[in-house]
Amino acid sequence: MNHDTSGKRPITLLGLGDMGTALARAWLAAGHPVTLWNRTPGRAEPLAAEGAAVAASVADAVAASDLVVTCLLDDASVLAVLADADLAGKDLVDLTTGTPGQARARAAWAEERGARFLDGGIMAVPPMIGVAGSGGYVLYSGSRPLFEEHRATLAVPAGATFVGADPGFAALHDVALLSAMTAMMAGIAHAFALVRDEDVPLKDFAPMLTGWLTAMAGYARGVAEHLESGDYTRGVTSNLAMMVRGNATLLRTAEEQRVSPELLTPFMDLMRRRLDDGHADEGTTGVVDLLAR
Amino acid sequence: MNHDTSGKRPITLLGLGDMGTALARAWLAAGHPVTLWNRTPGRAEPLAAEGAAVAASVADAVAASDLVVTCLLDDASVLAVLADADLAGKDLVDLTTGTPGQARARAAWAEERGARFLDGGIMAVPPMIGVAGSGGYVLYSGSRPLFEEHRATLAVPAGATFVGADPGFAALHDVALLSAMTAMMAGIAHAFALVRDEDVPLKDFAPMLTGWLTAMAGYARGVAEHLESGDYTRGVTSNLAMMVRGNATLLRTAEEQRVSPELLTPFMDLMRRRLDDGHADEGTTGVVDLLAR
Repeated sequence: MNHDTSGKRPITLLGLGDMGTALARAWLAAGHPVTLWNRTPGRAEPLAAEGAAVAASVADAVAASDLVVTCLLDDASVLAVLADADLAGKDLVDLTTGTPGQARARAAWAEERGARFLDGGIMAVPPMIGVAGSGGYVLYSGSRPLFEEHRATLAVPAGATFVGADPGFAALHDVALLSAMTAMMAGIAHAFALVRDEDVPLKDFAPMLTGWLTAMAGYARGVAEHLESGDYTRGVTSNLAMMVRGNATLLRTAEEQRVSPELLTPFMDLMRRRLDDGHADEGTTGVVDLLAR
Repeated sequence: MNHDTSGKRPITLLGLGDMGTALARAWLAAGHPVTLWNRTPGRAEPLAAEGAAVAASVADAVAASDLVVTCLLDDASVLAVLADADLAGKDLVDLTTGTPGQARARAAWAEERGARFLDGGIMAVPPMIGVAGSGGYVLYSGSRPLFEEHRATLAVPAGATFVGADPGFAALHDVALLSAMTAMMAGIAHAFALVRDEDVPLKDFAPMLTGWLTAMAGYARGVAEHLESGDYTRGVTSNLAMMVRGNATLLRTAEEQRVSPELLTPFMDLMRRRLDDGHADEGTTGVVDLLAR
C-alpha cells in the first residue's frame, strides 16, 4: 500500500530501464510516494532502499495509484504489460517511445478501458532527468484535463510541454526533433571525416562546428514562414542556384579528402531536382514538398 | 590612382557579385581607399558613387593597391582574371569559394609570381557583411605574416579567424562547416515534412526545432574527444544499440506520415553497420571511420 503522507501525488511507474529508473528517482527525491513494477524485479531494489514501494504484480502496481506512468521498451510492451490491468478511473501517462499512430491507438484503447490518457515524448537522456536547468523536457499530448491536473507532478523530472489534444502529437513532435537531430549528427560525422586526417586540432574545430550549427539552426524559422505563406522565396539570402553551385565544392572537397559523400548526396539530389523544376530563387523549402509520398 | 588620405590601407577588390559588393561597401564605409574591377563594369557604378575608384583593367586594379582581394565565381575565374597580372610584391587574399586543393594550388601559383597568399572562407551571407555583431566571420589560412599585417583591414567586413599556415585549411574548415549545415538543413526539411499536414502551428514548431538543434549541437565536442582518444564509448549517454532501436521509430513515423526517409537512411545504414560490427556501446563516432574511402 502506498500512503500519501507528503501531500504529493502517489505515482505508479511501470518499467525500470535507464529512463524509468531516472524518473523514479526524480519523483522519489521530490517526495512523491512511488510504487514500482519491473519485469526484472532486481532493477527495483536500489529504489526500494530510497523509499519506493515495489509491487509484486502489475495489478498491484496499478491499484496503488491513480496516476500510472509507463516507460517500457516499446508500444507492444505497454499493451502486453497492461493487458489484464484494471484501468477504470486511472490516469495513464505513457512515456514509452513510439510513433504518433501507436500513441493514438493506445489512447483509444485506454479510453475504452475507462482511463484518461496522455502520451509523452522525453526530450532528454537519463542523466538530465531531475536536474534543474538541464534543458531537457517532456512533450505531452492527449487529455488536457489530465495534463493540467498533474502538471506539477509531471514537471518534476523535466520541463512539461503540452503540444495538443491529439494524442499522437507528442510522438510526432518528438520524432520530428529526433529526426532533425539525427541528420545533424550525420553532418557532424561528415565534417569530422573531412578534417580528421589533417593537422587540425579537433578540440578547436568542435566548438567552431557547434557555434556554426547553433548560428544556423534558426533556418527553421524561414522554412516555417515559407510553408505558411506558400512563398518559398521570402527572405532568402542564399538561393537554390547558389547552393547547388556550392554543393559542387562540397562534393569535390569530399573527394579530395577521400570521404564518401553518401550522407550529403540525397539532399543535394533533391535540391538539384527542385532547381531543375525552375525554383532557382527559393531556399531549400521546396525539398519539403519533394519528400511527400 | 588611389591616394591613401585616411591612414587606412588601400584595397583592390576583383569581383562584384553580391558578396564582393558587400565587401566593397564595408571597406568603403570604414574609410579604406578601394579600387574595384568587375567583368561587367556596371556593377561598380553605385560603388563609385560611394567613393570607390573603378579600374578599367585588371592590370590597373592590381597596380592600385598592395593588398589585392579576389571574390570571384570560382577558382578557374581567379586563374583567368589574374593570368596576366603582375603580382610581384603583392598580398593576394582569395575569398573565392573553393576546395582545399584549389587553395593550395593557388597559393603555390601566387608565390611563384612573387606574391604572399592568404585564402579565405566566408562564413556569412552578404547581408551580414559589415554588420557588427552579425556573427559572421571569415576563416583565413596561408601566410601568417600577411594575416597579421592586414588583420585590422581583414576584420572590417566580418570577424577574421586564422586557422593555419596550410593554405588549404580555410577552405577545409569552410567546407566542413557548410557540409554539416547542409545535413542539418536536410534534417529540418524532414522534420517539417513530418508535421506539415497535421494541425501543428509551424510558428511554434520552428523555435522548438531550433532550440532542440541548438541544445544538441554540442554533440560535436564528444565526437572530437572520441576521435582524439580513440575510445568511442567515452561519455556516451545514448548508445548505438539504443539509437538504432530508436531509428525504427523514426522510420515508422515517416511511413505513417507518408514522408520519404531518404534523407535519414544513409546515416542509419552506417549506424547499423557499425552496430553489427560489434560497437553497441559507442555513440555515432564510428560512422566517421566508415566514411573514409
